[in-house]
Amino acid sequence: MASLDTAALTEEMTRRDAADPLRHLRERFHVPAGMIYLAGNSLGPAPVAAFRDMEAAMRQEWAEGLVKSWNDAGWFALVGTLGDRLGRLIGAAPGQTVACDSVSVNIYKALHAALALRPGRNAIVAEGGSFPTDLYVAEGVVAGRPGLVLKLEGVDAARIEDLIDENTAAVLVNHVDYKTGALRDMAALTRLVHDKGAVVVWDLCHSAGVIPVDLDGAEADLAVGCTYKYLNCGPGAPAFIYAATRHHDALSQPLSGWWGHAAPFAFERGYRPAGGIQRLLCGTQPILSMRVLDAGLGAIEDVPLSALRAKSLALTDLFMELVEPACRARGATIVTPRDPATRGSQVSIAFENGFAVIQALIARGVIGDFRAPDTMRFGFAPAYLGYADVQRAAEAFNEVLTGGLWRDERYTKRRAVT
Amino acid sequence: MASLDTAALTEEMTRRDAADPLRHLRERFHVPAGMIYLAGNSLGPAPVAAFRDMEAAMRQEWAEGLVKSWNDAGWFALVGTLGDRLGRLIGAAPGQTVACDSVSVNIYKALHAALALRPGRNAIVAEGGSFPTDLYVAEGVVAGRPGLVLKLEGVDAARIEDLIDENTAAVLVNHVDYKTGALRDMAALTRLVHDKGAVVVWDLCHSAGVIPVDLDGAEADLAVGCTYKYLNCGPGAPAFIYAATRHHDALSQPLSGWWGHAAPFAFERGYRPAGGIQRLLCGTQPILSMRVLDAGLGAIEDVPLSALRAKSLALTDLFMELVEPACRARGATIVTPRDPATRGSQVSIAFENGFAVIQALIARGVIGDFRAPDTMRFGFAPAYLGYADVQRAAEAFNEVLTGGLWRDERYTKRRAVT
Repeated sequence: MASLDTAALTEEMTRRDAADPLRHLRERFHVPAGMIYLAGNSLGPAPVAAFRDMEAAMRQEWAEGLVKSWNDAGWFALVGTLGDRLGRLIGAAPGQTVACDSVSVNIYKALHAALALRPGRNAIVAEGGSFPTDLYVAEGVVAGRPGLVLKLEGVDAARIEDLIDENTAAVLVNHVDYKTGALRDMAALTRLVHDKGAVVVWDLCHSAGVIPVDLDGAEADLAVGCTYKYLNCGPGAPAFIYAATRHHDALSQPLSGWWGHAAPFAFERGYRPAGGIQRLLCGTQPILSMRVLDAGLGAIEDVPLSALRAKSLALTDLFMELVEPACRARGATIVTPRDPATRGSQVSIAFENGFAVIQALIARGVIGDFRAPDTMRFGFAPAYLGYADVQRAAEAFNEVLTGGLWRDERYTKRRAVT
Repeated sequence: MASLDTAALTEEMTRRDAADPLRHLRERFHVPAGMIYLAGNSLGPAPVAAFRDMEAAMRQEWAEGLVKSWNDAGWFALVGTLGDRLGRLIGAAPGQTVACDSVSVNIYKALHAALALRPGRNAIVAEGGSFPTDLYVAEGVVAGRPGLVLKLEGVDAARIEDLIDENTAAVLVNHVDYKTGALRDMAALTRLVHDKGAVVVWDLCHSAGVIPVDLDGAEADLAVGCTYKYLNCGPGAPAFIYAATRHHDALSQPLSGWWGHAAPFAFERGYRPAGGIQRLLCGTQPILSMRVLDAGLGAIEDVPLSALRAKSLALTDLFMELVEPACRARGATIVTPRDPATRGSQVSIAFENGFAVIQALIARGVIGDFRAPDTMRFGFAPAYLGYADVQRAAEAFNEVLTGGLWRDERYTKRRAVT
């Protein structure tokens, strides 16, 4: 395909888009006109149904229904009903997942729950290259438990597998690396963790909704994830936490708020944890943000994740194929694995002036993002991206990189936050 | 006034409403037609401006702005900009308040922060009659710290003052009791806590937005509160947490997520807490829910809290005066203090069949709520309630109670949650 000229390539992409069995999903999302959105691995676009749902949540449920909506609109039950729907997307049978809080808070709960399951063990193992909040939260857990240590892949050993031993209580690991897009073998690593008698906590932020996840099948112990990336549930939307049923009786965590109580509305004086996954809840949830999950999940849950995965791999394959020559010529390096078995749904490219390249692409309507010090990230969400989109994105990328268009000072000037 | 007949009373209420300097606030809220809403101490009604703001947040900021709205729409800064505006309503100078997470999660942070400020002390003191989540969370904190104990007013001593001594690290106390509506003297209790060398954590859930709070003036240490009651920011809206500037350098808490990092977007490996109040943040916040705070705060922040307080006291005085004869006759007891110095903005009435009374009132468009085992609660929000509303509510209450209308089985049948 690399040898095709632009016209032939365009024709080929048109053909592929027309044949795409997931093509109909695109109309379920609002993608701004003229934009090719490759930052869905950071914040997914708005599902069209969310506009209507939020209108109903604001004007009917809240404004008209007021307090009675806690029952009548099912607000109080959302943590569980949405949790079970999230569960379907991550291979979790009902009753093991709740939607709540932030990923960071849920990591805190999960690590404490894991430690409680493995008393007497003194180490948490994580990835030095992890999304930072995982490590920051693990540090907070370790600081509160004298004798507990945090061991990091890339610091204490090259491979995480070599850090897991009979002292390991919990292994906190990302299913897909936020920066490189590398995908872990969940079943294999979970097996290894269990062989050492430890408990695994999977962070699914960059896989939920775009990669088939089989927590139950892998016999995973605990998991967390967000809903605002490939699940498209809105900025900072409530996260989720999973715990396998076999652990529920022994499950404990210190954020013992009233929503995790066995009888939250009995107003009992002493904390009595709910029987199942509900004991991982803490306080009152942000219902308006939570109400978007129905539209976000609804936009993809009627298609098989295997189909989303197949298209995702085809999109990332195509992008890498189309940009590789320019990358090689200009000293940029594709850091995302080429092997589909170890690749998530993004393509990351290391380039010293990556920040400026991303800005130049944004100016051209191709939205990726940048992670310090040098990583350009392009997320490929199969639900709303097509093959022609990838072609256009790759052409813009090649033009910016090969033509040095990123050197413009409009693009090289850094901003405070991203 | 109790001797006035209905016509004369109606005339008097009309006069009072016409003379009410806060009368104009009412149009800022959507209160359903024909409803007298006395559950604003549970969930406040929708500010009209919130409809427009949410539409903008959904359709412009998220749907069109996508990731760049973290900067361009100020999403990332909301925790602080809204925190400072919340600060103005609770007597906190800028830089001491952030909007984030749930009250329960913030109590957890605040108690840990307090313990870190008072190493070597071994007790948390709280109220046995506290809103339960405060106690549940305190239990979670205590369980994680061997040697730490939780002492409760009403259990370990009759008065909280008698539990505070040189072993007390933190005193967790509600400014207004959720059940009785009793108001604490913040300055006096804070002084007493400090005299014993301890740190106070004020829970402002039932006072923020309706009672002048002066955290800085009282030299309070830490505080938490919600924004969905008298601040009318939506169901489960993000809560807030306050820490006095003098404590910031020594402030620490275990939920050390990336939003509390000194440089959240530097993606550093080690946790380095932000310099000020930001270190009490943890994870990514639910932006859509957060976006309602602007309208909620905006609806009351241009009037003095002293004016809201004066009207609130007038409304609760009036209600108590009008329902007292019926209560006395039917064995119901007003449990809210009559003294304005010790009264919040609600009237609570204990009655064995209070659940049914509340249901009968709801059927008549008068919305109060019920807290087990026997407490009817009526919240009086001066921003959207008038004197004629109170008259109508009291007349409905008297009719239901005196006429025994609550005995209808439609009203006596209990529901699962409230």
